[in-house]
Amino acid sequence: MAKAKNFRLAEIVERFGGEIAGNPQTAISQVASLESAGPQHISFLVQRKLRKQLAGTRAGAVILGRMDGDLTEIPRILCDNPYLYFAKVSSLFNPPPAAKPGIHKTAVVEPGTRIPASASIGAGAFVGRGVKLGRGAVIGPGCQIGAGVEIGAGSRLHARVTIYPACRLGDGALLHSGAVIGADGFGIALDADRWHKIPQIGRVVIGDDVEIGANTCIDRGALDDTVIEDGVKLDNLIQVGHNVRIGAHTAIAGCTGIAGSTRIGKHCMIGGAASIVGHLVITDRVIILAGAVVTRSILQAGTYGGHPAQDNRNWTHNMARLRHLEALRQRVRQIEQQLQMPEEQA
Amino acid sequence: MAKAKNFRLAEIVERFGGEIAGNPQTAISQVASLESAGPQHISFLVQRKLRKQLAGTRAGAVILGRMDGDLTEIPRILCDNPYLYFAKVSSLFNPPPAAKPGIHKTAVVEPGTRIPASASIGAGAFVGRGVKLGRGAVIGPGCQIGAGVEIGAGSRLHARVTIYPACRLGDGALLHSGAVIGADGFGIALDADRWHKIPQIGRVVIGDDVEIGANTCIDRGALDDTVIEDGVKLDNLIQVGHNVRIGAHTAIAGCTGIAGSTRIGKHCMIGGAASIVGHLVITDRVIILAGAVVTRSILQAGTYGGHPAQDNRNWTHNMARLRHLEALRQRVRQIEQQLQMPEEQA
Amino acid sequence: MAKAKNFRLAEIVERFGGEIAGNPQTAISQVASLESAGPQHISFLVQRKLRKQLAGTRAGAVILGRMDGDLTEIPRILCDNPYLYFAKVSSLFNPPPAAKPGIHKTAVVEPGTRIPASASIGAGAFVGRGVKLGRGAVIGPGCQIGAGVEIGAGSRLHARVTIYPACRLGDGALLHSGAVIGADGFGIALDADRWHKIPQIGRVVIGDDVEIGANTCIDRGALDDTVIEDGVKLDNLIQVGHNVRIGAHTAIAGCTGIAGSTRIGKHCMIGGAASIVGHLVITDRVIILAGAVVTRSILQAGTYGGHPAQDNRNWTHNMARLRHLEALRQRVRQIEQQLQMPEEQA
Repeated sequence: MAKAKNFRLAEIVERFGGEIAGNPQTAISQVASLESAGPQHISFLVQRKLRKQLAGTRAGAVILGRMDGDLTEIPRILCDNPYLYFAKVSSLFNPPPAAKPGIHKTAVVEPGTRIPASASIGAGAFVGRGVKLGRGAVIGPGCQIGAGVEIGAGSRLHARVTIYPACRLGDGALLHSGAVIGADGFGIALDADRWHKIPQIGRVVIGDDVEIGANTCIDRGALDDTVIEDGVKLDNLIQVGHNVRIGAHTAIAGCTGIAGSTRIGKHCMIGGAASIVGHLVITDRVIILAGAVVTRSILQAGTYGGHPAQDNRNWTHNMARLRHLEALRQRVRQIEQQLQMPEEQA
Repeated sequence: MAKAKNFRLAEIVERFGGEIAGNPQTAISQVASLESAGPQHISFLVQRKLRKQLAGTRAGAVILGRMDGDLTEIPRILCDNPYLYFAKVSSLFNPPPAAKPGIHKTAVVEPGTRIPASASIGAGAFVGRGVKLGRGAVIGPGCQIGAGVEIGAGSRLHARVTIYPACRLGDGALLHSGAVIGADGFGIALDADRWHKIPQIGRVVIGDDVEIGANTCIDRGALDDTVIEDGVKLDNLIQVGHNVRIGAHTAIAGCTGIAGSTRIGKHCMIGGAASIVGHLVITDRVIILAGAVVTRSILQAGTYGGHPAQDNRNWTHNMARLRHLEALRQRVRQIEQQLQMPEEQA
Repeated sequence: MAKAKNFRLAEIVERFGGEIAGNPQTAISQVASLESAGPQHISFLVQRKLRKQLAGTRAGAVILGRMDGDLTEIPRILCDNPYLYFAKVSSLFNPPPAAKPGIHKTAVVEPGTRIPASASIGAGAFVGRGVKLGRGAVIGPGCQIGAGVEIGAGSRLHARVTIYPACRLGDGALLHSGAVIGADGFGIALDADRWHKIPQIGRVVIGDDVEIGANTCIDRGALDDTVIEDGVKLDNLIQVGHNVRIGAHTAIAGCTGIAGSTRIGKHCMIGGAASIVGHLVITDRVIILAGAVVTRSILQAGTYGGHPAQDNRNWTHNMARLRHLEALRQRVRQIEQQLQMPEEQA
């Protein structure tokens, strides 16, 4: 996927800031890891303490923290946040692949749609009645877009995404294969030992600049909508239940499940395989660690983990203390013996 | 998705029972939440203690418990189970969307199938040799139906469902996008440090009125069949291993995994992201909470949770006691000091 | 799926070894479980202690351990490893179904591909520019194969698999429906409270004889590749993050998540619904139990479980001790009373 286009360090710094040490005319054509890089690549080092990784790299240039200019002689860009800087440089060298505008001859487009000439609809895709696409939207091959769906400008659906009827995606959405947006929420009511299905008549409404990973599912609301705010990033194989709201710029790692009607705040980071039960409130800027089972609302920013989830220092301390429990039991036994008390049964 | 059809409260009570307070001629065209409802909507209140939610609703009518008729002046239906009543009313206003009978011209149907004129096969769907569909069955666009599959009357497969060869679905099935029924179970045998695959020659056999969520997987049996009994409701992203049996009217929330050959009883409720290891027996009417890791059979009805799963009161008490462990350790130290005993190492 | 072809016990032993007791001319046409078997079937017993299951079987023959020949009069094959032997016999009776070579008329194949005449491409499949298939490769209906993908000889993709551009699969791969290979890894960098996407320019590189379950996702690398070595077996609904490496002949059960850059050794067995955080090293021959949350590297072969994961005997003992904590607290209280010490608050 390497692009032929070269940039000199001077051009890069002109775009993204930072300082150059070494030859500013060094030409770069791609990013690479320190291990794999060759002379045409720019690489990066996130933390000074990882500096051993610099030794032996064949990179043509590296991105370093402002204090780390002395770690190497390789031409280098010094900046405040090398990881972010690298992300920007990588985006420069790796723009999203262009999609050919137009509707593939094997795609099926039902009547009443609004599809701009700049949009692209792939082979075998199905686009239902009344669908509206924004400028430059890309619908990958094999996608299934239900009736009345609206998808914003510059959004890209990779192959084999499903959007159920009436859902809305904002501008700049990026959806990966197998994602399912707007399937029925899990709404059932007991009727004398049998389940009666509750029709799910809400939608899924997704803001701008949202990324949704492969095989992730976001259910439509039961009555009102399920809402994903701007800038949310969801990894693969995540389940978002009906009527959940996920606040702006929250990122959630893979295999996490969020049960119905829970509200997640803005700027949260939720680790992989976390489970969050229904009808909770998670406030802004909460960090939830991998594998946490969240059974109560979290009303204070902080880092939470464990099963059940709690302030993560508590969880870690408790699980550590547990390892010393047998020793404590023996101390109690010794006291009992000294006091000539009978041993308890437990 | 609102339907134009109106019903008066009097008509609703005629169908579903209950008592009217207020004007029985109040006309309703859709259900809505208390917050979103307008004068054309009927809403509901599940529990008296949530009555604050009634204040300020603009709903034209509400469904309440028999004792709660005094909570509002809005025209209302009083009944024993407002949640179930609401479910029925919502089904009245929101019947499943009709699908156009017939086979889309882009669908591929292999020879030897039995497809009634009332059935619908969507764009780009693939239907293998010898498939048999019941009356009114709907195969969504992009579905893949393997050879010899049988699907009962009134069943509906949303877009992009896969059914492997020879599996059977009963009447009234509802399958969501990305569901995979009948992939190979995870059957492998070690042969001198390498894995030898064991052919999976059983089927998946699914009863009547079963709902299966988006991206949920049910594996075919190794030798005998994997069986899902009548009325089972499965949420999204669930894994059901080979030769599992799930008893009638059991409901399972999203992200749960059930390993091979485990038998789940009837009328169980299994929370989200639960893990149940293989070769267990779970009896009828067991409730398993979200995130539980079930490592032993459960032979008594009740509520189980935790890791490892146990009677949920035990788990909750144990995890609460754990928080007091440090205090207990300090008490033991004080006793030791009073007795002039040496402090233990742990 | 039964095949008409018969084999006599003598022929089976000639292929796979073992000893016959009873009539070597007994003809068999399929494998079956002890419960379901009829006279045309061969069944098996893994452990002597399960011998009750032999009673009442109507199987025509059984496979037993070398010491278990006395457990029945039924014609039998005695061998060292009845489970593996059964696996081989089942493979003899159940070869993978043949796929018709050629490209289905509804498939879309872009220019510049290399597709041998022996390969099969199913209905509605999409095959991008420059794709190379090995001899006898089978691409199921509805599959989406991105540009530049290479798939080895004898590989089989069931219906509706997605491979993103530039990924490589070795020979003999078996992929189940809904699997997504090569979607973007979850790479994002914070930029003043917003997420900046990091292009994911590595590939997924998969060795020979790898099986990948339904709806499992393997993300492409951020810079370097994500690597799945030879003989790895992955169950359904597994998430493999970017730049993970999974060592040869490791088997992983369903619903497990492995976060980015973690390296799993060879010959590991990882239970269902395990979570492994990122940037860890798991050495060879490690067993991780179902539901484990692995938060640290594991550098010694052994069996690990729990949350956080630890030597599984520790976890089991600790959780058992926890149940006795209340009794211990009461013992401490009695000591305090005997010593006339005040009760602590906790």
